[in-house]
Amino acid sequence: MSHKPARAYEIVFWAHSDVDRSLVRRSTLSACPSSVDGRYKYITCLHQGRIENVFLSDLDKHNVQITRPWTLKRFQTLEQKSDHPLLIELQSVDGACMETVRSKYLFGADGAQSLVREKLNIKLRYKDPLTCTWGVIDGVIRTDFPDTKVICFVRSEHGSALIVPREDGMTRLYIQLPTSQKWDRETKDSIELQLQDVARNILQPYFVEWDYVQWYSLYPIRQGIAERYTLDHRVFLGGDACHVHSPKGGQGMNTALLDAQNLAWKIHSVESGFLQRDILETYESERRKVAEKLIDFDNRFASLLSALIPKISHNIDNDGLGTSVCQDDPLVRTFKESREFVSGYGVYYEANILNWSPDHAATSSLINPKGVKLVPGHIFIMSDVTRVVDANVVHLEHCIPLDGSFRIFIFGGEPSQSRSALQDLSESLMGKESFYTAFLVSNSGTSAMGSKDKNFCTLCTIFATARSNIEISRDVPGVLAKNTEHVYADDKFDTGASIPVPSAHDKVGCGPESGVIVVVRPDGYVGIVVRLTTGGQTADALNAYFSSFCSKPLGSSVFRSLRPV
Amino acid sequence: MSHKPARAYEIVFWAHSDVDRSLVRRSTLSACPSSVDGRYKYITCLHQGRIENVFLSDLDKHNVQITRPWTLKRFQTLEQKSDHPLLIELQSVDGACMETVRSKYLFGADGAQSLVREKLNIKLRYKDPLTCTWGVIDGVIRTDFPDTKVICFVRSEHGSALIVPREDGMTRLYIQLPTSQKWDRETKDSIELQLQDVARNILQPYFVEWDYVQWYSLYPIRQGIAERYTLDHRVFLGGDACHVHSPKGGQGMNTALLDAQNLAWKIHSVESGFLQRDILETYESERRKVAEKLIDFDNRFASLLSALIPKISHNIDNDGLGTSVCQDDPLVRTFKESREFVSGYGVYYEANILNWSPDHAATSSLINPKGVKLVPGHIFIMSDVTRVVDANVVHLEHCIPLDGSFRIFIFGGEPSQSRSALQDLSESLMGKESFYTAFLVSNSGTSAMGSKDKNFCTLCTIFATARSNIEISRDVPGVLAKNTEHVYADDKFDTGASIPVPSAHDKVGCGPESGVIVVVRPDGYVGIVVRLTTGGQTADALNAYFSSFCSKPLGSSVFRSLRPV
Repeated sequence: MSHKPARAYEIVFWAHSDVDRSLVRRSTLSACPSSVDGRYKYITCLHQGRIENVFLSDLDKHNVQITRPWTLKRFQTLEQKSDHPLLIELQSVDGACMETVRSKYLFGADGAQSLVREKLNIKLRYKDPLTCTWGVIDGVIRTDFPDTKVICFVRSEHGSALIVPREDGMTRLYIQLPTSQKWDRETKDSIELQLQDVARNILQPYFVEWDYVQWYSLYPIRQGIAERYTLDHRVFLGGDACHVHSPKGGQGMNTALLDAQNLAWKIHSVESGFLQRDILETYESERRKVAEKLIDFDNRFASLLSALIPKISHNIDNDGLGTSVCQDDPLVRTFKESREFVSGYGVYYEANILNWSPDHAATSSLINPKGVKLVPGHIFIMSDVTRVVDANVVHLEHCIPLDGSFRIFIFGGEPSQSRSALQDLSESLMGKESFYTAFLVSNSGTSAMGSKDKNFCTLCTIFATARSNIEISRDVPGVLAKNTEHVYADDKFDTGASIPVPSAHDKVGCGPESGVIVVVRPDGYVGIVVRLTTGGQTADALNAYFSSFCSKPLGSSVFRSLRPV
Repeated sequence: MSHKPARAYEIVFWAHSDVDRSLVRRSTLSACPSSVDGRYKYITCLHQGRIENVFLSDLDKHNVQITRPWTLKRFQTLEQKSDHPLLIELQSVDGACMETVRSKYLFGADGAQSLVREKLNIKLRYKDPLTCTWGVIDGVIRTDFPDTKVICFVRSEHGSALIVPREDGMTRLYIQLPTSQKWDRETKDSIELQLQDVARNILQPYFVEWDYVQWYSLYPIRQGIAERYTLDHRVFLGGDACHVHSPKGGQGMNTALLDAQNLAWKIHSVESGFLQRDILETYESERRKVAEKLIDFDNRFASLLSALIPKISHNIDNDGLGTSVCQDDPLVRTFKESREFVSGYGVYYEANILNWSPDHAATSSLINPKGVKLVPGHIFIMSDVTRVVDANVVHLEHCIPLDGSFRIFIFGGEPSQSRSALQDLSESLMGKESFYTAFLVSNSGTSAMGSKDKNFCTLCTIFATARSNIEISRDVPGVLAKNTEHVYADDKFDTGASIPVPSAHDKVGCGPESGVIVVVRPDGYVGIVVRLTTGGQTADALNAYFSSFCSKPLGSSVFRSLRPV
């Protein structure tokens, strides 16, 4: 945010009027629908290079430097059983240097023309044949068109354009190019001016002039997906290397980052000795489904943007902005339906070894208990809570640093009602066979697995009462009180409800009288939801969950049967 | 905030129990009462040196370096009529260098032992004779006392202490020292350990140990105020140089910063050619009243903290935290009453040439119109509004940069109702005799007064309707539309009200049907509130206001009679 990106709060649809062919504003959507449980209700528009720099600076702080420009020459898997099975040959782009590296993994995030994909002989399957070419131009414009500071679709008789505001007062225009003309990257000299002419034509009678052009390009519209993301779970593909589509939805980098994040924590957990190697298989199964949805959305979206504009309908709707939404316009409808997905909030993963959603083979009334709204495979809730030790109002979802560990949120309801259940949970967690004990980091900073400074999981307790009713020394037993900073009061009430309910408990779907435990994967997705009860059953369910993918068997035998075959 | 200060949300009062003499939590207050219209409802605790560094870095960015350590040797006023009437002799602290400077002003912010004050022969008048000494110790502690992350007063049989959380996990303790012992800064060696012993004694039966001591000191408790803040409006005093008190209220730096800010914008405006030199007289009159309140608060506060603790009363109150507040405890009551003042929100200035509050000599129904809640001399409202051009939700009070210019907020109510009044206002502002025209910065960046890049005022229009109902080209006339980024929709409704009202208009005290103009001084305090009407009267009132202190007479003669004699 320190780069001061543009914040697009609205999506506006312009088209020519049926009456006099002039350009009119036909629909307005909020960029982020109310169904998205997000703190930042806008689309952040910032140049990709600036975001890359944030990562590069952070790597640099941790003494990791990216070496470039280098290219991959070849790679091969030498010995599958070795710690470093891969042999990778690299060459500097100027051809002057060669280097050979032994590696544990190779991540081919090398774009639509991926060399890694080519060498693996994995095909990219396209949805439709190549149809049309678009142009894109970044710069500082002067115009009397009023909607250049929001995301704006313009469909005129002369073609379509998409306007996206950017940082530093810049504006990006995506421009549909007339098929009557051949567009070629070779004829570079005139393309910049030709793109401006096409844009002016589309936006007439408004004027648009460029004070400064930062960059421009041409791109074909086509959607494709790789047949496989990996062959051996050592060499992986991610980003454009396995899914290509148009840039207009802003989903290229977003999807690639989630690809990388999904794989990164799994590799981290395997290499830290926490999880079994076969969880790496969930990378492709989880991320491919997301890519398929993206490709499908982009395909419909791209063809609608080039299609004829329907007549203005009287079937208009209100999007909570006091503005009219043309319901009969398929482009508006498609975009409206896709906002959850595009925001990232609608990305979810199906039942598997990590996500014990209702479709999972496990059967127990303690798992996914009745009334709970939070579904494994979906993103965790966001909520304001009060930290007990200092009365600070904090974001629950950010309380525990995202350091690759599992986060275990214990929603305790009323302290007086959950006291004995918490006592039992604490004792079970400290029991000899529990996952918690197995991976406990000792005071010396070295875990039982020998991994220094790596936490397998972090515990956090939230009570559904005012902070002043919570006395940590009385209400939080044993291991749960190990870090008193991780005890919270869920005391921000949802004033919209008829009976005020503590908002975090309400979002999870548990009342003050019934506790629930939510295990959140290191990437922020819910893994399992378990009812908090007296006795050892709650801990048994957690042991069953973790023992299904942890690097050594854990827990009592009671819940072993829950593990999928 | 990037220094991660501690945020104290609560003030907790501990004292010994009447029953068994053990220490008990007796009252809890929220740090920021609901009457404070603030965004940040906590007390920010950060080492003064870090805040100074923020200013030093910013000065450095603007190519201003602070030269130190230097000391003042002498100064004299040579020629009052000169541009640089002061002759100031400086010496480096090591005595090696002398330097003579000709200056326009001299600001003596040189502390309680101020050399500038001494040379001006201005006396510091003390409220009471010196009574007792306190100790202060900063460091990292280990303790089982539960309230070290909030601001905590402890009054035990063994004395009083004040605990303040700080950045980096540090804790500051202010400790009342036993009068049975002589405390002297000379015997430094043992003082650190003695202070720790006194603190342990006060906090028993809880334990407290220091892992690290960053700093400690002794200080006497005494309140004093300088007889004068300036003699000639060229040499000024500010901060501890003109008001001394105990550090416990955290008001030393806060008051000094507001002293400096109050004087700085006035000097800026005079030297830019905008305002008459005699507005500098308002520095002492405005800031002395604030200092007197502070001294009075500190005096009562300090004596109550050393006084006997009253018995626990059954007359308990609720402070919105679900906690009990002991109403019969004078310390709690005093602190509760002082929170507005301590937060800075309760600081206000009385009627004078700059603040046309109801006590001001001006008489007109347009000035301070009926129903308006905002009072000149008080701080401007804070409010979330929607910027029309990009639908961004922004903080109204931060929309216009604090660059030394007056900010003129035009609350326009419903656009359809205010259209002709706004049209008239725009035309009047652009009239030959208006303050706006007189100080208009031309396109070349040079104002009519020859001051480059300095804005006398910035205009901003806010409508009481949804953003989608506002069309700038239709609703915002002439000069008001000069910067389309300064047009806002007041569309965040106060849902607490029986009939939802746009919250910014409601805070100001004007409805959708009646517009109001609020002029805010460069330091954020309201100068004048004028009803928006058709015809030229609104602009006349603004001209009368500005012409009373601007560097040249402005406006029509209609409202001249409003100016004070």
